[in-house]
Amino acid sequence: MRTNLALLLCWGMLLPAQTPSRPIAGFQPDSARTEAELEQRFDHALNRGNFQQWLKLLSSRPHHVGSPGSRATAEFIAGQFKKWGYETQIETFYPLFPTPKTRLLEMVAPERYTAKIEEPPVEGDETSRIKDGNLPVYNAYSIDGDVTGELVYVNYGLPDDYRKLREMGIDVRGKIVIARYGASWRGIKPKVAAENGAIGCLIFSDPRDDGYGQGDVYPKGAFRPPQGAQRGSVMDMTLYPGDPLTPGQGATDSNRSPDPRQAQTVTRIPVMPISYGDAEPLLRALGGRVAPADWRGGLPLTYHVGPGPAKVHLKLEFNWKLAPAHDVVARMRGSEKPDEWILRGNHHDGWNFGAHDPLSGMIAVMEEARGLSELAKTGWRPKRTIVFLAWDGEEPALLGSTEWAEKHADELQRHAVAYLNTDGTGRGFININGSSELDLFSSQAARDLTDPQTHVSALDRSLAARRAAGREAEFHVDPLGSGSDYTVFQHHLGIPSLDFSFGGEGRGGVYHSEYDSYDHFVRFIDPDFQYVMATAQLGGRMVLRLANADWLPLQANSTAKAVRGWMNEVMKLTDTMRTETHKKNELIRNGDLKLAADPRLTFILPEPKEEVPYLNFAPLQNAVARLDTAAAALEKVDRSKLTAEKQKSLEDALRVAEQKLLRNEGLPRRPWFRHVLHAPGFYTGYGVKTLPGIREAIEERQWKEAGEQIAYTAAVIISYADWIESAASNAGR
Amino acid sequence: MRTNLALLLCWGMLLPAQTPSRPIAGFQPDSARTEAELEQRFDHALNRGNFQQWLKLLSSRPHHVGSPGSRATAEFIAGQFKKWGYETQIETFYPLFPTPKTRLLEMVAPERYTAKIEEPPVEGDETSRIKDGNLPVYNAYSIDGDVTGELVYVNYGLPDDYRKLREMGIDVRGKIVIARYGASWRGIKPKVAAENGAIGCLIFSDPRDDGYGQGDVYPKGAFRPPQGAQRGSVMDMTLYPGDPLTPGQGATDSNRSPDPRQAQTVTRIPVMPISYGDAEPLLRALGGRVAPADWRGGLPLTYHVGPGPAKVHLKLEFNWKLAPAHDVVARMRGSEKPDEWILRGNHHDGWNFGAHDPLSGMIAVMEEARGLSELAKTGWRPKRTIVFLAWDGEEPALLGSTEWAEKHADELQRHAVAYLNTDGTGRGFININGSSELDLFSSQAARDLTDPQTHVSALDRSLAARRAAGREAEFHVDPLGSGSDYTVFQHHLGIPSLDFSFGGEGRGGVYHSEYDSYDHFVRFIDPDFQYVMATAQLGGRMVLRLANADWLPLQANSTAKAVRGWMNEVMKLTDTMRTETHKKNELIRNGDLKLAADPRLTFILPEPKEEVPYLNFAPLQNAVARLDTAAAALEKVDRSKLTAEKQKSLEDALRVAEQKLLRNEGLPRRPWFRHVLHAPGFYTGYGVKTLPGIREAIEERQWKEAGEQIAYTAAVIISYADWIESAASNAGR
Repeated sequence: MRTNLALLLCWGMLLPAQTPSRPIAGFQPDSARTEAELEQRFDHALNRGNFQQWLKLLSSRPHHVGSPGSRATAEFIAGQFKKWGYETQIETFYPLFPTPKTRLLEMVAPERYTAKIEEPPVEGDETSRIKDGNLPVYNAYSIDGDVTGELVYVNYGLPDDYRKLREMGIDVRGKIVIARYGASWRGIKPKVAAENGAIGCLIFSDPRDDGYGQGDVYPKGAFRPPQGAQRGSVMDMTLYPGDPLTPGQGATDSNRSPDPRQAQTVTRIPVMPISYGDAEPLLRALGGRVAPADWRGGLPLTYHVGPGPAKVHLKLEFNWKLAPAHDVVARMRGSEKPDEWILRGNHHDGWNFGAHDPLSGMIAVMEEARGLSELAKTGWRPKRTIVFLAWDGEEPALLGSTEWAEKHADELQRHAVAYLNTDGTGRGFININGSSELDLFSSQAARDLTDPQTHVSALDRSLAARRAAGREAEFHVDPLGSGSDYTVFQHHLGIPSLDFSFGGEGRGGVYHSEYDSYDHFVRFIDPDFQYVMATAQLGGRMVLRLANADWLPLQANSTAKAVRGWMNEVMKLTDTMRTETHKKNELIRNGDLKLAADPRLTFILPEPKEEVPYLNFAPLQNAVARLDTAAAALEKVDRSKLTAEKQKSLEDALRVAEQKLLRNEGLPRRPWFRHVLHAPGFYTGYGVKTLPGIREAIEERQWKEAGEQIAYTAAVIISYADWIESAASNAGR
Repeated sequence: MRTNLALLLCWGMLLPAQTPSRPIAGFQPDSARTEAELEQRFDHALNRGNFQQWLKLLSSRPHHVGSPGSRATAEFIAGQFKKWGYETQIETFYPLFPTPKTRLLEMVAPERYTAKIEEPPVEGDETSRIKDGNLPVYNAYSIDGDVTGELVYVNYGLPDDYRKLREMGIDVRGKIVIARYGASWRGIKPKVAAENGAIGCLIFSDPRDDGYGQGDVYPKGAFRPPQGAQRGSVMDMTLYPGDPLTPGQGATDSNRSPDPRQAQTVTRIPVMPISYGDAEPLLRALGGRVAPADWRGGLPLTYHVGPGPAKVHLKLEFNWKLAPAHDVVARMRGSEKPDEWILRGNHHDGWNFGAHDPLSGMIAVMEEARGLSELAKTGWRPKRTIVFLAWDGEEPALLGSTEWAEKHADELQRHAVAYLNTDGTGRGFININGSSELDLFSSQAARDLTDPQTHVSALDRSLAARRAAGREAEFHVDPLGSGSDYTVFQHHLGIPSLDFSFGGEGRGGVYHSEYDSYDHFVRFIDPDFQYVMATAQLGGRMVLRLANADWLPLQANSTAKAVRGWMNEVMKLTDTMRTETHKKNELIRNGDLKLAADPRLTFILPEPKEEVPYLNFAPLQNAVARLDTAAAALEKVDRSKLTAEKQKSLEDALRVAEQKLLRNEGLPRRPWFRHVLHAPGFYTGYGVKTLPGIREAIEERQWKEAGEQIAYTAAVIISYADWIESAASNAGR
């Protein structure tokens, strides 16, 4: 259909001046104009007043999974969705979820100190006074334990830290380690501690990284006060997230045995998080070597590594129960393509009051849904089906999203176009990360959003910040690791996913503490909900575009470009490791390392490592070349000129294309993670590893496995390329 | 003379196995063997027991310039030299030296706090109990003042820090600034503060850089305790060191007016150093913006920049007097070339007890002198004259060395071969820095010295450490900035100079405090005087080699190589500045910097800077090429084959060659510094700037001056090259 000129001019006059008349991927020019107008109407339908009201209400009581607050939250949200006309249901799952029964941490030598592990009420923070029904400071999925041992400070508790300790002649076997938060996802720390023979693990928030070193502490400022602690899951989510007892299956049965010993992802040693207030006496009592310079934090003392003379007793017991996780699922049926689903979600459970995490994102999703319902009242309907999702149990283990997606895996893989995730938002610069297939789509969504503070395009502001920081001024989405509800969609099911938020300004330090409250949020994070509003505008715009597009804006060329970059990285990584291994081996063998060490301090010379062989990257290089060709073929297809039948056939192919990037066998030792392009790192946790099968084999110096993974990954990329090229060729015929 | 084989074999059997039979620059092969044997005898003559006895004695009372302790120290040292047979005299100068009369620092708002500015006695440190006759915590050559003002925290107090403050909208005019020690010589801080309009300056030791952040504090460990403070000079020694009232002249007149207003180098605003114990309440009371992340130190508080609400009152009054500075000068006359002088010195004054700084170096010098006197007892005499020097008044302003060398400038420029300096020593790796002409000489001295801990060559150990740290494994001396007594010799008179010490292990944090004591030294710095012994061995070896060499081991090719490197650096610096200026100007003009800033925080957009022009480096490039040719010509001269007459004539030329690198007019705005290759940086202080006329003009964006300085520097380098080439050509004729 072509719009005549007169109508165009007429449109031009009707629309406000700032209306984008720019192309939108997936839309014919005239549909793009209609879409732009619709987005304006959507923006106008949003009401900032709702944010304050909902945030106040939903953050007024603890609402972690399994709590009465969680149920009430789910019911409130479901009620709203229903009121707005959505087909709404609450789907409940029964994953294993431990809550603390006994938490005891005491130093027994050289003096006694009993850790408080409580967060006191603070002036001006109303909910911090509530001590009924909330979750105390603990790490979920720590195993039960009653251990006593000398303390060793292990810096961030990563493999390199233990290598450094070994060089200093320090062995953590039979010891309790104390690690600081940071540099990896917290669950990595007890995993690596256990691998090294420790019998217990404490994780503290160091004030340099997360306290007065960052800014004034709460309530004077936004940052973590001395007794503030970071709760959080320590389950080994790098194996699989969700219910530890039902990997790959929805945990629908409420009558199973909640036995943690049957769970692969529960920690092997007891773990507890502590505040820097509680950490200070322990660290002060440590003796032994002074910690290396870059291990020292912000406490007013000299950091030592131990072991001892500080000796601690850690006793942890948990109620191991199946907890009901209530997911809210709300559908607006598509008018033309009801079997294509646009998924949009945020979790609703918080560690306690959870104003910032997750509610600032949840209320944006709610307002998006309400905004769309306002459009619907005027007769509008999306072409494709929109599904809003409010997840329960994200905090402990992405429980609600994982169980739901595992249960509905087949239909999701058939129908889902994309999953759009948020997990709270802050103030500042736009971040959109996820599937490369949605690169152009994401940049256009950012382009068409106005930054509320500077009134320029959110994309322009973010590019200005990149340029000001001396970085390349090109927008692209970065791949996702883990840490929020996109995980099962992206890495297990191969559904194109995005995660987005604003941040970089108005920072705070109350993450996973009782001080993540309404009062804190409106003082420090996003005082007038400008960025919650921007999040709703962005989320709504993305949902609308995916739901209304003439054709799905999924690209293969951005994926091809990204994969080539990652391939170059792993090749360079191998070369760098080869050079450095050789250099280090030389320094070991020729005596330089020994000579450079202070003879008055213990230095255990490390063994030379196997030299890094040259790997056969050719299969991967050929696969990437193949992908370039296929992506180029798809680019050549003029979508605007396809017959309806060919359009549909191409759409059906592209919608499921990213699933071709899954390998059925999954990654080595963690089959749940099936995407060959990215996964959360086995030793980073949230942090993404691209081409993970290959990269982690190289990092772990498993040369045989690296060769195998190159071949497997290449084969999967080729099958994706074949799929793309065949779809393009069918369309072009 | 050729030694016959039988004699050689005989020698070989007499000498211990480790005797170096390696070439020594300046020596014929047979003289090298004699020299090696002599060095062995010298080593055997050294007695470690003296170190403990002398250190204990000399550090038992305060001995700063003008004190009874200083006089007693000079007399003791002179007495020893005399006893060992040296022609010894004490030369006394009368420089301006202020001592405190009133020291008051109090916070007057928002609460009251009076700074302690006292270092309490500590357990196990005998001299820390002595409070009679010692110098309290103060900065010498601060002007008198009585000021009250709001406090502003200025990080390290360097020009870039004030630029950052201006961007934050903070003006220090009329304010009192508080800067932390580090990142520059301390005297730069009040200078830059005054340039920016501040009315007073406090300098504190931050515990991250200099306190518990480095290690356990004294007396548990070696590091600076909460009330420990760093005394030190703040005179503007980048203009000229020595007596502020007699630049370029020896301060021999004791009857002049001690008026600080006639001194260019006294600070413009009052300055006082404080401990972190005293700084903590002040910094805690500061409000305003949170300091940038890299401005935050190790105190357990959030660093703010102010201004205010902390308001302080600083009142300083000094006794402005001429103090007697007693230099000890001890000569051993040369047997063959008495008019060629080898100078070897260390200062004897300390801020208080000064065990590490300077006595650990002073006792090495004394033992060197005693060792040589033992050789002399056996009939040995050096070919050239050896002059041992024990300087007074180094701490306040290099007073003793500067005044002495200014007074004796003419004869020094005629007779001095080289000045060898130490200023204390620690444990660890060898450091030798100074004139490039002594590059090979230095590396051979290090090569032939055994590291006492590892029993390998000190050179090998130092190279191993460089390789282990991933640095280039090539020994060369680095050029000298300032901070010790070599300054007048190197930068004012153009006499080849070296400064050496050991360090990198057994660190401490009592620099310029009352805790720099015998007890501290033997616990933490060099417990068994192994490295004081190594220093004496090295110093003695260097003196012996210079005194006995068949010809002076002065090179021009190492200087040529170094100058080429520095030229490349300044050219690259200009290019980098050009690119960065252009980039920054773009970010300012296109709005990126403004857009990247948090709108809720003040951000004053800086003005674009003048773009960096292309400079004409050709004169310098030609001069450096000319120098290469000249140095190559000198290398071709076979010194072993010259007639005595030619040898002498070449020696006379080379001895004064480095003086050809002086420019009579000196550096811009500081004519006292005359060496065109290096000077202490105008905004770094101790830190060296190579090709300083050119480099500093570029850094300060004075393009016209940079062009002039390129021409001047090139002309001076050419005159040096001409001198070298003409000497080489005369010898070769």
